[in-house]
Amino acid sequence: MSALGRHLLVEFTGCEAAVLADLERITAAMLEAARASGATIVTHSFHHFSPHGVSGAVIIAESHLAIHTWPEHRFAAVDYFSCGAVDTGAALALLQTALGATATETLSLTRGPLGRLDG
Amino acid sequence: MSALGRHLLVEFTGCEAAVLADLERITAAMLEAARASGATIVTHSFHHFSPHGVSGAVIIAESHLAIHTWPEHRFAAVDYFSCGAVDTGAALALLQTALGATATETLSLTRGPLGRLDG
Repeated sequence: MSALGRHLLVEFTGCEAAVLADLERITAAMLEAARASGATIVTHSFHHFSPHGVSGAVIIAESHLAIHTWPEHRFAAVDYFSCGAVDTGAALALLQTALGATATETLSLTRGPLGRLDG
Repeated sequence: MSALGRHLLVEFTGCEAAVLADLERITAAMLEAARASGATIVTHSFHHFSPHGVSGAVIIAESHLAIHTWPEHRFAAVDYFSCGAVDTGAALALLQTALGATATETLSLTRGPLGRLDG
């Protein structure tokens, strides 16, 4: 069986702390990222994260795009689970700019009964 | 820096197709799983997935718990991103029973600037 989905786990480091702590800016960036990838947004939910930061997800027809931020570490963890044709690269490039990240590290996995690391 | 979060990616195989296609049952199982792990539920969103199955996420104070199901393959992909003390094992055991999975495969990752595979 071929892969059913693709799951990208992305670590954004060296981000702007003020952005990572800003619920409205994170929400806007995540929605813009989902749109940039061509995904169909179903709904979204974001909230302030304890003790700092913002947490939430955009539920898309093609799966989900989630974020958790740690302003005190200038770090954000993003995951983009997708099925079908979405341009995840466009979403991640937009997020890198929006978060002011100085570096990113991406782990790409296929999901399915034979899911495995593939890059 | 120690890990900031833990991200479990779980493949449930051999599931009951009828359960995987049932929006209400998947929603109930995911909420029950979040509660079983001791997480604080913030909100949730589930919807029918194209062309089959159910997709959605529970946003918890400690991060998120998401699922995507493929009834036609008797397969469900779950991910549980957690920060702080939650009993992810209890959540996954509950889901295995609820989905009728005959096998599970779990990838556990730490998330953070030095995120890495750890099991």
